[in-house]
Amino acid sequence: MQAEIISIGDEILIGQTVNTNATWMGEQLNAIGIRVHRVTSIADDADDIIQILNEASSRSQVILITGGLGPTKDDITKKTLCQYFNTELVLDQVTLDRVTSFFTSRGLPMLEVNEQQALVPASCTVLHNLRGTANGMWFDRDGIVFVSMPGVPYEMEWLMEEEVLPRIQSFFKRPAIVHRTILTTGVGESFLADTIKDWETSLENDQIKLAYLPSPGAVKLRLSAYGGASEEVLQQRIAIKEKELHQLIGQHIYGYGKASLASVVGDLLKSQSATLSAAESCTGGMISHLLTSVPGSSNYFMGAVVSYHIDVKQGELGITKDLLDKYGVYSAEMAEAMAKGVRAKLNTTYAISSTGVAGPDDDESGIKVGTIWIAVAGPEKVVSMVLKLGKSRERNILMASNAALNLIRKEFLVINH
Amino acid sequence: MQAEIISIGDEILIGQTVNTNATWMGEQLNAIGIRVHRVTSIADDADDIIQILNEASSRSQVILITGGLGPTKDDITKKTLCQYFNTELVLDQVTLDRVTSFFTSRGLPMLEVNEQQALVPASCTVLHNLRGTANGMWFDRDGIVFVSMPGVPYEMEWLMEEEVLPRIQSFFKRPAIVHRTILTTGVGESFLADTIKDWETSLENDQIKLAYLPSPGAVKLRLSAYGGASEEVLQQRIAIKEKELHQLIGQHIYGYGKASLASVVGDLLKSQSATLSAAESCTGGMISHLLTSVPGSSNYFMGAVVSYHIDVKQGELGITKDLLDKYGVYSAEMAEAMAKGVRAKLNTTYAISSTGVAGPDDDESGIKVGTIWIAVAGPEKVVSMVLKLGKSRERNILMASNAALNLIRKEFLVINH
Repeated sequence: MQAEIISIGDEILIGQTVNTNATWMGEQLNAIGIRVHRVTSIADDADDIIQILNEASSRSQVILITGGLGPTKDDITKKTLCQYFNTELVLDQVTLDRVTSFFTSRGLPMLEVNEQQALVPASCTVLHNLRGTANGMWFDRDGIVFVSMPGVPYEMEWLMEEEVLPRIQSFFKRPAIVHRTILTTGVGESFLADTIKDWETSLENDQIKLAYLPSPGAVKLRLSAYGGASEEVLQQRIAIKEKELHQLIGQHIYGYGKASLASVVGDLLKSQSATLSAAESCTGGMISHLLTSVPGSSNYFMGAVVSYHIDVKQGELGITKDLLDKYGVYSAEMAEAMAKGVRAKLNTTYAISSTGVAGPDDDESGIKVGTIWIAVAGPEKVVSMVLKLGKSRERNILMASNAALNLIRKEFLVINH
Repeated sequence: MQAEIISIGDEILIGQTVNTNATWMGEQLNAIGIRVHRVTSIADDADDIIQILNEASSRSQVILITGGLGPTKDDITKKTLCQYFNTELVLDQVTLDRVTSFFTSRGLPMLEVNEQQALVPASCTVLHNLRGTANGMWFDRDGIVFVSMPGVPYEMEWLMEEEVLPRIQSFFKRPAIVHRTILTTGVGESFLADTIKDWETSLENDQIKLAYLPSPGAVKLRLSAYGGASEEVLQQRIAIKEKELHQLIGQHIYGYGKASLASVVGDLLKSQSATLSAAESCTGGMISHLLTSVPGSSNYFMGAVVSYHIDVKQGELGITKDLLDKYGVYSAEMAEAMAKGVRAKLNTTYAISSTGVAGPDDDESGIKVGTIWIAVAGPEKVVSMVLKLGKSRERNILMASNAALNLIRKEFLVINH
């Protein structure tokens, strides 16, 4: 069975909007075992819409359409779908009530263009959008499913999860499929692949597929169990394989599903009633930003000193002139002293630090761009390591920040084993 | 004249990679007055590639293709293009020398798969890729141009700028077109549109088009002058209109082209030999991160105190218990005291600060999510303002950080006028 995605909207074609909807939908369909073989972006143009619908229905069984459902006159998807399916717009009272209450509860006037949001093609199944005014529309014709959804990601994602994906699974009687996403960091994709290659080969016997999803500094491994068995059986098969994987690369696994390294570190700190601070030089605030992106992080993250200038390192972190002269600003000793300094100053259980050359150029002293030291100070000891990264300032900042979070995560593992 | 973009790669269809290449290319083509009417993503599959090339050449004059040019066996674009254009692969010595030197200079072995990168279709014009091993390929047939480029954004963008866009302009004898991008912040798109509506109408007389490009907290205005005149004349026309725009919304304009608010603030600081520090509560390091994302920012940004916990505010920023009891942690007084505190502590000319509820929930004390105070302290005075933002933590952190940078930018305007 093949699916395709059609994204309607001038803003995508002129490069004003990145088509993240298609990416998200592709991931979701892939997760239920449906292959997307084409994604097409076209303009808000009736002829173009009709043409792509004709093309798509000649080769795909599931056709998901987003965009062009707003109340303004350049949004023509609904009208064009009526033309394509030879049907007409009728009033949907449930939608009219919902849209009316949306406006009155906000003290806003209900305009005629808003009322038009309650008109739906007579031949479609209405997918009520509880996150906005534009409904989703489900058409099926000769075993082919067409679904039209609004282009607003927040609304489209809700409709997909609540209505479209369950309906597709039931309409096409899709077999059960179970996923497990395992998050790794601190190890490259090719090294990982080499380490687990025998295990990977063994997955076939259990009808489990493996996908590598790499991003800067991290690789997600997604296990998908298919094969016509019940969900319970598939869960068991995955659990066994996951346990084996843990034996092979356990030290690189930081979490599961949608966790972030910062949220995992936060959970570890909370479990010990421990607190954290940071002393950031080349990461310039990024470690703090990642930590504080997690809601509730104020329970364990006390704060940080961004010591961009050497005076701040000396004045705020207790770095002595002696240490500076002896080891220099870019050194393991400096990173360790910074972590100890901020730990003492902000009175936290642990502290992390960074110092190095983010780039884009080498430092005047000859230290190569991408050479970055990170350290963790705890109640009993201080550890540090040096990273050799590339020339991209942005990427170096992100990778060093994640490496610093991973360093403290690994310290917790040592403590608890 | 119509263009279309074809993105080849399984990773796009399964939702592993966001198709930012198509967005970037759409923006660049639009900027030279060429309309992209379709973007298609397909798999690394020969039949699919041949089919979309047939379709595209029946309706478009410019067909830009990315992806599938790597050295591994799943990359089949080059071979498939040979089949489509009925030509064969020949060795390109210039490329072989470049690729060989790429590997030997890094002390890496030159493998057979790498040598294959020097094979090119006999009938194409080779666009030498000085940023990687996979060349671009330019084919023209019956007045239709096909260009194949690698999918790595860094390589594709370089090839587009250095080779493809100039060649397209010359091949199709495109008339001159001049752009000017004006960056605004601190004002919404609809308010902006209303303020400049008469001016916008007047643009037609000079054959200038206006595009609004909104993002969180900022709106870019792109002026494009067409109309068959020389580049010099178009430059003059735009300059006159830009001057008029400055009179209408000058206080909201922070820069031009590709500048960022952080780089503009950096330039203002450098012009005065002034220095900056930050005291961040709810922005949690984001202001520092934005400032230090600018290469060379160590010349004016001394550092920051991320005072996430109240103890850090009291201990590090000199916040008194009296002030805390009287005004609370979320208040203009707190923001101002934090800015003054960090300015004194890190001994900088200026300081910025933030305190408030980033979300996603209201504070226990009843302060609504999205209520955030920002302040700027300078040699002569301290100013602050309150923002009323939404419920998204991520968006609130970014918008408050940019608003704080804009607050100091506006202070500079006052000082210098």
